Amino acid sequence: MVTAAVAGGATAPVAAPVHRARRLGIDTGYEAVVYLHRDSAVVHAEGFDSQTRVELRHGGHAILATLGVVSGPLLAPDEAGLSEIAWTRLRAAEGAEITLAHPAPVESLSHVRAKIHGRHLDAAALDAIVADLVSGAYTDIHVASFLTACAADRLNRREMIDLTRAMVAAGEQLSWNAERVFDKHSVGGLPGNRTTPIVVPIAAAAGLLIPKTSSRAITSPAGTADTMAMLAPVELDRGAMRRVVEREGGCIVWGGGAARLSPADDVLIRVERPLDLDSAGQLVASILSKKAAAGATHVLLDIPVGPTAKIRGLDQAGRLEEHLLETGRAVGLEVCPVLTDGTQPVGRGLGPALEARDVLAVLRGEPDGPADLRQRALLLAGRLLELAGTAPAGSGEGLARSILDTGAAWRKFEAICAAQGGLRTPPQARFTRPVLAQRTGRVAEIDNRRLARVAKLAGAPHDPSAGLVLHRPLGSLVEAGEPLFTVHAEAPGMLAYALAYVAAAARIIRVDPA
Amino acid sequence: MVTAAVAGGATAPVAAPVHRARRLGIDTGYEAVVYLHRDSAVVHAEGFDSQTRVELRHGGHAILATLGVVSGPLLAPDEAGLSEIAWTRLRAAEGAEITLAHPAPVESLSHVRAKIHGRHLDAAALDAIVADLVSGAYTDIHVASFLTACAADRLNRREMIDLTRAMVAAGEQLSWNAERVFDKHSVGGLPGNRTTPIVVPIAAAAGLLIPKTSSRAITSPAGTADTMAMLAPVELDRGAMRRVVEREGGCIVWGGGAARLSPADDVLIRVERPLDLDSAGQLVASILSKKAAAGATHVLLDIPVGPTAKIRGLDQAGRLEEHLLETGRAVGLEVCPVLTDGTQPVGRGLGPALEARDVLAVLRGEPDGPADLRQRALLLAGRLLELAGTAPAGSGEGLARSILDTGAAWRKFEAICAAQGGLRTPPQARFTRPVLAQRTGRVAEIDNRRLARVAKLAGAPHDPSAGLVLHRPLGSLVEAGEPLFTVHAEAPGMLAYALAYVAAAARIIRVDPA
Repeated sequence: MVTAAVAGGATAPVAAPVHRARRLGIDTGYEAVVYLHRDSAVVHAEGFDSQTRVELRHGGHAILATLGVVSGPLLAPDEAGLSEIAWTRLRAAEGAEITLAHPAPVESLSHVRAKIHGRHLDAAALDAIVADLVSGAYTDIHVASFLTACAADRLNRREMIDLTRAMVAAGEQLSWNAERVFDKHSVGGLPGNRTTPIVVPIAAAAGLLIPKTSSRAITSPAGTADTMAMLAPVELDRGAMRRVVEREGGCIVWGGGAARLSPADDVLIRVERPLDLDSAGQLVASILSKKAAAGATHVLLDIPVGPTAKIRGLDQAGRLEEHLLETGRAVGLEVCPVLTDGTQPVGRGLGPALEARDVLAVLRGEPDGPADLRQRALLLAGRLLELAGTAPAGSGEGLARSILDTGAAWRKFEAICAAQGGLRTPPQARFTRPVLAQRTGRVAEIDNRRLARVAKLAGAPHDPSAGLVLHRPLGSLVEAGEPLFTVHAEAPGMLAYALAYVAAAARIIRVDPA
Repeated sequence: MVTAAVAGGATAPVAAPVHRARRLGIDTGYEAVVYLHRDSAVVHAEGFDSQTRVELRHGGHAILATLGVVSGPLLAPDEAGLSEIAWTRLRAAEGAEITLAHPAPVESLSHVRAKIHGRHLDAAALDAIVADLVSGAYTDIHVASFLTACAADRLNRREMIDLTRAMVAAGEQLSWNAERVFDKHSVGGLPGNRTTPIVVPIAAAAGLLIPKTSSRAITSPAGTADTMAMLAPVELDRGAMRRVVEREGGCIVWGGGAARLSPADDVLIRVERPLDLDSAGQLVASILSKKAAAGATHVLLDIPVGPTAKIRGLDQAGRLEEHLLETGRAVGLEVCPVLTDGTQPVGRGLGPALEARDVLAVLRGEPDGPADLRQRALLLAGRLLELAGTAPAGSGEGLARSILDTGAAWRKFEAICAAQGGLRTPPQARFTRPVLAQRTGRVAEIDNRRLARVAKLAGAPHDPSAGLVLHRPLGSLVEAGEPLFTVHAEAPGMLAYALAYVAAAARIIRVDPA
């Protein structure tokens, strides 16, 4: 209770909107939530309803949060329960005094409404929107509305460029003491498409500067950072990353650790995913802002095209290529899009350790290594060498092959791993069980989505050795009783859980009479 | 732990996705949320991430919920914390077994994506969307995307009609054994605009059938149901409501109690509010679906127009009128829109009891009753009598006045209140304090939004006697030291809290030299 002077009267006690902070441990993504008891003085006096936005203050910090009203014993009336992002942004401590207030209106939402009405946004409007996205001023509802207003090609080229620039400027930026900095990226998830740990050492061995930041898995059994973590430390700070790149010309580290690059992208992606929107503008701005913020000047983009990939047809791919080229040029990025086959998984392993084994097999030139992963990595590395001018057009793939086959790529990879903290051996799962073909014939269809799910049910990527190894790709012959794939797990329960899902393997891999 | 047969092996223990239900008491609106611990077997094995949708099963019930991942001691790894709406929909009990699974895709989202791409939706598509809105299949993110895709006049007349019909069909419907059933509604909140408890008895006294359902306050100091609850019970079930209407020709009850009318509207409104979208189609469908579901055939619509009202100009009002008329006709509603002054609050009191006193003063014909509320109610009642053919065009207001002035309206109101459970006397606040003019002059400007906030800070509508009484409307003369308005509260702390906000009354009511 504090007192306040009342006009024409004495001071009187005020039901002050001060609450004690409590960390509830609830992950609410990028939307901060404060939980208050229904009997809280603030909920009564301010007339706050669930989903109202409130301003929280603590020390010198002020953040916006969405109110979640709570009944029952979870909270005391003078407690402010904080979600994880609220706790972090407010730099709160258990029991600290939190002051609540009505927030000022979020001005940039007027630009979102203008966009909804079909108007074009200028650079200042997009800057304001992106700044508010990053500061946490938007709820997920606002983000969804912005994404919807921009979807279906409603961003013109100018807006894509301005949005990309705004997203770069709203985060940290890496800079490299070099004229040309190379990068590669794959658009949309194809299981097992782990070319990065092969392409980077080939490019670095050829003299390119390629400081690669990768992500962890979001919905897949493994992200590139998860796979690379099986082979070397990937959580390097900016200084350590810079030392690796200066020494070896390349690195493969976790992007979340090295820097806060294009943080607006993280906010947009998290809401875009459940909406599953087809939004060329947002895709272009997301990809290019991350690459520009990472300091790249030349970017190779692997665009898998297939019925279950992100890009489903050549028409769509063609429009996207043009946007990427032109928007890239405007923000100082030379972009090289490469359309690739997106119809089936790449390599044999799914899961961090098993994908790392595929990578090692290709880098070491093992005769039974996965040929499709090798071929795909050589195609991409070749185009990168051509982009760099290291190889003439049409001969990049040959140069890449010789770098790989002479062992130069493997030596470079070993050196990069050593510089990142030391080469590691991927762990081996304790429990494995094959799933057998029930008839003799030819593998006619593989359901990539379900196959990836088996790997996740077995524990990947949380359990790094978990996942599966595919023995029979599309088109191979198999005899009844031979294994189609082998599930790997760290505990018998997890193995059984995945196998229970497999039940009838016919649903996942279809074998037709040969 | 359960066991499952594994292909080619013995039975093995499975980390079964069964959790014990726990009610957390968190209000998450219409989006069900299930909170699981980061160490839950399901979070590991299924690779669930926060914001993933999961299916919850309990007994014969299955619902969709959004996953909230929790760390720390809030939940045990085998507990499923349920938000209030999840708890209710699932009909869970403390400790009950909850099974979790990956949900089937929500098919109607493909129609939302089609709308985003500018295509028109047919009746079947809108039916599917509305059914999924009502069942809880959409997250708030999906609702926001749908609203955005329909905003800015992107729904054509055909779609408005089909959406309205779908929303009516998706809930319960009242039917009255009468050819013509009247209703009234006000579009957008004008503080103190409490004409309903005056219009209904005038209309019922003139022989119209007018079964009125009203809402409680969402963001205002009082809703019509809050005000009416000061004068009679309003939480009647459908049978009780029907008996009142059969006996008296009218009622004024809380809509949430009588029936589940157009529940999709409740879902849309809750997300529309923070988005603050200008969406004619959604407004038309929201209003008309509620009225059609309540069994009305003739609807009077009060459309306040003013710079801070929902409808800001005559252009916008004109387009809205046409949509309401045509869409109403298509769904069997004769609509009579009336544009009214939306520039200042109506009556004197703000807050349930104080607004009820205004209503009583007008109904009883007290000489110092609020003239603006009386005039507004007579205008609307007159138009309603003309719509019914009870009075010829141009003479409705005169008939309404005579019904009010002869006491017939007051007697009808008393009878309605008696039928609803008995006329009550509005409570009186224990603590009041006037806010005085600091100079002599004329009231030049009233900030309606801030005035409403003072009433809410004083405790309205939670504390029913709380709020404020405005003594000097726009244009009145006031001397320094005379009261501009008086704040009412149920506790000294609340009074002081509101007055601390008032601080300099000049910010709320501007007095210029006369």
